[in-house]
Amino acid sequence: MKLKIFSVGGTIDKVYFDRLSAYEVGFPSIQTILAGLPIGFEYEIESLLRKDSLDMTDGDRRFIKKRITAEPCSKIIITHGTDTMIETARVLSGLDGKCIMLTGAMEPANFKSSDAIFNVGVAVGAVWSLPDGVYVAMNGRIFDPFRCRKNREMGIFEDT
Amino acid sequence: MKLKIFSVGGTIDKVYFDRLSAYEVGFPSIQTILAGLPIGFEYEIESLLRKDSLDMTDGDRRFIKKRITAEPCSKIIITHGTDTMIETARVLSGLDGKCIMLTGAMEPANFKSSDAIFNVGVAVGAVWSLPDGVYVAMNGRIFDPFRCRKNREMGIFEDT
Amino acid sequence: MKLKIFSVGGTIDKVYFDRLSAYEVGFPSIQTILAGLPIGFEYEIESLLRKDSLDMTDGDRRFIKKRITAEPCSKIIITHGTDTMIETARVLSGLDGKCIMLTGAMEPANFKSSDAIFNVGVAVGAVWSLPDGVYVAMNGRIFDPFRCRKNREMGIFEDT
Amino acid sequence: MKLKIFSVGGTIDKVYFDRLSAYEVGFPSIQTILAGLPIGFEYEIESLLRKDSLDMTDGDRRFIKKRITAEPCSKIIITHGTDTMIETARVLSGLDGKCIMLTGAMEPANFKSSDAIFNVGVAVGAVWSLPDGVYVAMNGRIFDPFRCRKNREMGIFEDT
Repeated sequence: MKLKIFSVGGTIDKVYFDRLSAYEVGFPSIQTILAGLPIGFEYEIESLLRKDSLDMTDGDRRFIKKRITAEPCSKIIITHGTDTMIETARVLSGLDGKCIMLTGAMEPANFKSSDAIFNVGVAVGAVWSLPDGVYVAMNGRIFDPFRCRKNREMGIFEDT
Repeated sequence: MKLKIFSVGGTIDKVYFDRLSAYEVGFPSIQTILAGLPIGFEYEIESLLRKDSLDMTDGDRRFIKKRITAEPCSKIIITHGTDTMIETARVLSGLDGKCIMLTGAMEPANFKSSDAIFNVGVAVGAVWSLPDGVYVAMNGRIFDPFRCRKNREMGIFEDT
Repeated sequence: MKLKIFSVGGTIDKVYFDRLSAYEVGFPSIQTILAGLPIGFEYEIESLLRKDSLDMTDGDRRFIKKRITAEPCSKIIITHGTDTMIETARVLSGLDGKCIMLTGAMEPANFKSSDAIFNVGVAVGAVWSLPDGVYVAMNGRIFDPFRCRKNREMGIFEDT
Repeated sequence: MKLKIFSVGGTIDKVYFDRLSAYEVGFPSIQTILAGLPIGFEYEIESLLRKDSLDMTDGDRRFIKKRITAEPCSKIIITHGTDTMIETARVLSGLDGKCIMLTGAMEPANFKSSDAIFNVGVAVGAVWSLPDGVYVAMNGRIFDPFRCRKNREMGIFEDT
């Protein structure tokens, strides 16, 4: 019973920047989250990219797909920026023998009010429970990436 | 898409007591947790009991089963003390047309290091994803209540 | 025994902004901080400005000085951005009959790792304890604004 | 500019115990608090006792006094249980050449709602600012230990 986790950046991993400093997507925050909890399964975390998802290119998505295709573990979580999480999920659809859960956060994991820990929990609960496929785990729900969108005004993912 | 949540007490809801004060299981902490997050589904929370699970009786379990049997919502989470969570889960097995997820926490939700938010996330992710049945969601895993136990020394739930 | 608190903005009050949203200095975070604590003194909080301190003008400082001069309470804390906190402190020097403590934070109060609560504590402990004058309370120290500077590389205030 | 910190136990350092586990006063929490902050002064922390302050004896207080008398540093903070903090402060009065600040917390430092970080801040701000003597720093105020009491019903220290 093993879980492979890839981080590619996004708000969940953002660290603070002030007006005189450079902006930065930091260390995979899912590592800090899981390290602080009594976790009963084996996992491995690998940082593939550290990008705001608005900056992610088609090339980045091909790279992610290549790495996930080569990954022997069948249970996979990807922490990703929310703005283009759905696009990446669609690119990953059709991979055989894998249950892939994309999640992220509306607020950086270092915020007191962040949804990061909860979202990671939702992704973990769903990845063990669902058949192979690609899913988006946000706002306490599990979405089919071909039938959802991010509603920026509401700050929430919803069905289309 | 609606979730019904019952709280019956346990460590997750414990509030502080000092040497000169009375001990107390407080308000359902899952309510505070969900209220602080951008949740995309409808839910309703009902407090059935406020007990340390070591104090829970057969009568308490019959009462919980009666209430859950009468509950029309098919997706159910119960926050429960960890010491006898498995016993309650077994009592609830066999109810038709319901996916019931029991969860709780090793440390009170008000602790900085608590596993409560994560565990609630795991239960939420799993309750939408699994077929009808009764499950225990602890330590980032989903257990069959007839094939797990709480390992007190390790502070973790494990397979039997 | 009363404390008057003015907020003028700065990192301590910053709220999150993502790439597609507008930037904002939010509500005075010292209000949330004190409201959550068992405080044994009377206080009043007034928001004068909501500015990144790099955007603060001479006119802003004249306005702050005017308001503080008119303030009858003799014990005053100002939450302020760290980049020009020292300049504002110097402008306020020479006001009779007032003990004025400027503080702020290196990280927004909403960050888990923020220094905001601690810094507010230091300012409160010092404002009751020192003779009239203007002081900067940062990094657990109380500085004379004419003999300190912000060391940006180290992220710390220090003596000059 | 150096601060010596002694911890003797109390609620601030309490770690969780459940119904089947032994009770424990843990590691000095002030160490974790200060280690996570951008602190601009030198400090040293020493754990003298790990006791609920209700269990503290006259012998314990003599031991604390002996250690503090022998301490060369003139600026001292003691983290202490709140129930008998005032008694210990009185025992320490009359020591020459030292500014001694006793503080603690109404809730363990590991609680999300704990007053520990704030109280430590208040003690730090006051210890640099006040003349030699013994003081109690609680609820954002600095008390003379001969003119205050803990109001248990209100959960607050107050003047007598």
